[in-house]
Amino acid sequence: MYVVLVYDVSVERVAKVLQVGRKYLTWVQNSVLEGELTPAQFARLKAELKKVAEASDAIRFYVLPSKNSFRVEVLGTSKSEPSQII
Amino acid sequence: MYVVLVYDVSVERVAKVLQVGRKYLTWVQNSVLEGELTPAQFARLKAELKKVAEASDAIRFYVLPSKNSFRVEVLGTSKSEPSQII
Repeated sequence: MYVVLVYDVSVERVAKVLQVGRKYLTWVQNSVLEGELTPAQFARLKAELKKVAEASDAIRFYVLPSKNSFRVEVLGTSKSEPSQII
Repeated sequence: MYVVLVYDVSVERVAKVLQVGRKYLTWVQNSVLEGELTPAQFARLKAELKKVAEASDAIRFYVLPSKNSFRVEVLGTSKSEPSQII
């Protein structure tokens, strides 16, 4: 599965959430990480984030079948490798 | 097509980018909007954002075939209607 993680967490937890996210996914833009995961890795990622996040934080996962099931377009600075620059 | 928009723009342009995004998409989380668009609507959205954004901003679109081609999971506060709460 391919997972896109977008987080909106309190400033004091940003570094911790980013650190956990980076163990499993690739940083692509401020507050956005993505990558291919096995179901077991995705479960571990969620379990680790649950320990770090508070109820007031918002962490959103888009779960896609594969990297081929969508495309990415980037406007402005591409801080990583986009599929396509518009 | 179903479009997820994630933006990381300079603070002085956040309100403008959000205003344009909201014309076409639904706000789901800080800096994240999503929704079903026709190709023509998506082209207009990009054209309007290009007028507002600067080169140093980062606006990332995930373009998916439909709402059925992925699922959403939310950790922490769900600020909108998620497909599934974990």
